[in-house]
Amino acid sequence: MRTVTETPDKILFTPGPLSTAMSTKEAMLRDLGSRDSAFLEIVRQIRTKLLDIAGVSQSSGFEAILMQGSGTFGVESVISSALPRNGRLLVAINGAYGRRIAYIARVLDISVAELQIAENRPINSADVEAAIRIHPEVDCVAVVHCETTTGLVNPVADIGKVVAASGKMYMVDAMSSFGVLPLDLEATGVDYLITSANKCFEGVPGFAVIIARTTALQESKGRARSVCLDIYSQWQGLETSGQFRFTPPTHAILAFERTLAAFEEEGGVAGRRARYEANHQVLLRGMTRLGFRPYLEPSHQSCIITTFMYPRHPRFSFELFYNLLNDRGFVIYPGKLTHSDCFRIGTVGQVFPLDVENLLVAIAETLEEMGVDMEDC
Amino acid sequence: MRTVTETPDKILFTPGPLSTAMSTKEAMLRDLGSRDSAFLEIVRQIRTKLLDIAGVSQSSGFEAILMQGSGTFGVESVISSALPRNGRLLVAINGAYGRRIAYIARVLDISVAELQIAENRPINSADVEAAIRIHPEVDCVAVVHCETTTGLVNPVADIGKVVAASGKMYMVDAMSSFGVLPLDLEATGVDYLITSANKCFEGVPGFAVIIARTTALQESKGRARSVCLDIYSQWQGLETSGQFRFTPPTHAILAFERTLAAFEEEGGVAGRRARYEANHQVLLRGMTRLGFRPYLEPSHQSCIITTFMYPRHPRFSFELFYNLLNDRGFVIYPGKLTHSDCFRIGTVGQVFPLDVENLLVAIAETLEEMGVDMEDC
Repeated sequence: MRTVTETPDKILFTPGPLSTAMSTKEAMLRDLGSRDSAFLEIVRQIRTKLLDIAGVSQSSGFEAILMQGSGTFGVESVISSALPRNGRLLVAINGAYGRRIAYIARVLDISVAELQIAENRPINSADVEAAIRIHPEVDCVAVVHCETTTGLVNPVADIGKVVAASGKMYMVDAMSSFGVLPLDLEATGVDYLITSANKCFEGVPGFAVIIARTTALQESKGRARSVCLDIYSQWQGLETSGQFRFTPPTHAILAFERTLAAFEEEGGVAGRRARYEANHQVLLRGMTRLGFRPYLEPSHQSCIITTFMYPRHPRFSFELFYNLLNDRGFVIYPGKLTHSDCFRIGTVGQVFPLDVENLLVAIAETLEEMGVDMEDC
Repeated sequence: MRTVTETPDKILFTPGPLSTAMSTKEAMLRDLGSRDSAFLEIVRQIRTKLLDIAGVSQSSGFEAILMQGSGTFGVESVISSALPRNGRLLVAINGAYGRRIAYIARVLDISVAELQIAENRPINSADVEAAIRIHPEVDCVAVVHCETTTGLVNPVADIGKVVAASGKMYMVDAMSSFGVLPLDLEATGVDYLITSANKCFEGVPGFAVIIARTTALQESKGRARSVCLDIYSQWQGLETSGQFRFTPPTHAILAFERTLAAFEEEGGVAGRRARYEANHQVLLRGMTRLGFRPYLEPSHQSCIITTFMYPRHPRFSFELFYNLLNDRGFVIYPGKLTHSDCFRIGTVGQVFPLDVENLLVAIAETLEEMGVDMEDC
């Protein structure tokens, strides 16, 4: 037994990296060899649990693959591996993460058709259907489940039906939603879903998670435009020897094992969503009471991250607001909208309604310190 | 203050991930936002220290870039970014990591010329010179500093002179050598050097390190065949906002800050090399005394990892040998040679001569348990 000084970290109201449990971080106080049988068994169990959480299994025709790097490395690995040479991709876009998918595909020399939607509107499945009719040559349709740009939820199940009817491949960027927003992969016809260790599972950053339909994976053999980001080969490595092809982030994986156990203890998808929903409701009520205006209509809004407009007040400066909140121990998130001045507050990670209440008090104090009277806005 | 149960981990005699200091792992018991000014300052300091250790600086025309993923992600990022479209690469190969460079380039549609050398011989600079004469069309020459396949050290400084004379770009995979085997980047004319957090710096896995000549970096703009593995854009992100473009492994970076401080306390490159050299000498003497035969001639051998031939004894099985040592708390490493039955023992990480002595005792006991009398080999 030893003693460790606990550092009083700021609370992260960010979409990830986020505040993680001390027990999650403590799981990293070990060194396991990347070929050690104990480590390989942990990886195997994690892959099985991820499929469980997704409501699928190897026997129902799905695989879980871990890919080193950030979530975007996972997204690029799927685009790079899933699309055939001379393949074409249709991306439905209503935020920065949809745009990023299109950008990655273009850099990989994949033809891209874009269905552009306003950033404050969900993607409509009828629009996707029409876009597929206009672009019958596309091999794959990609959409973001929760656009972290705004916090908006896209109706990926409805979109999945029209994609399935068209016989196209379906790729869902579920980075900030998986584990909280329910999604029936089989009914929705998802071929590739991408998420990350450090979002709703509350792990530390270091790898992306891909849930893939086995038949799609098998077709991807030899397609990848990269060695590192080759999903098929990564899968084969994990299946045959149980090992990663290249050094895995062993410590982040140990943390993930621990945090998945906590996820189950909290009641899985439903339990975690209930807490995030409570966080979000406290935030939305409190911010509205303070005079802030959310960017999205409530019906389009997720419990993951919420976008608020800057107050129209001459003394409001986001940089100052951010720094003063930071000094008080609360880290919020800047905006990412094309046309609106806004900021974001995440309600995910080891954050509880009481933390949100404390944030609201800090925001009220900060506004007062800045001389911003919200009644004047 | 809290108490944490210390897990008695096995000692890793592997080339990385390796045994790290508890203080390194404890640095991960924090959550910092990836845009937090404290985190950005840590990243800035790490980049400066890496240049210091390399004996260069921004003003002498070099940059340090961190890239998410394993070391191989760093290698691929350099190949993907450094070579122009229709570029050609000459790889001097005497092991699996040289072969991997050639393989990555081919997958990226880059023409490759290979200079193949026996796995037990260092690459000769005269051979590289001749290969460049035969392939004057190549843009870049790549070589591995310490071939982890065997533990062999290639004369990268001599090779650098002939590469510089030819005006070609020079890429050195210094994955397992940087921080221990000295290398004068300026005199050697290195354009890109790649290493990893979890090798001689004794950090945890999660990112690669690239030291690049600024002029080479500037030429790489727009060349990358990938978004995630684009070295130029990664550099621009770190230089302009101080941020990673995509979520960094914040915890692995906190561990790296701590382990770099320990590296300096140990006396930098010379201090760390002295310990690894002591480890290696104890290992080599002890293994020779036990009757094992090293694969390489001593003059070609690094202090990082040593390859030993399987004893020619009917009762010797590497799998059993590995497992019995593992049960005793010592993790060794399998071989990777094309034509020889061998295994490897790393002498890097938080491993000290006494640990090597203990390993030698365990090896003697294990051989006895297996009924392998080395005098019969």
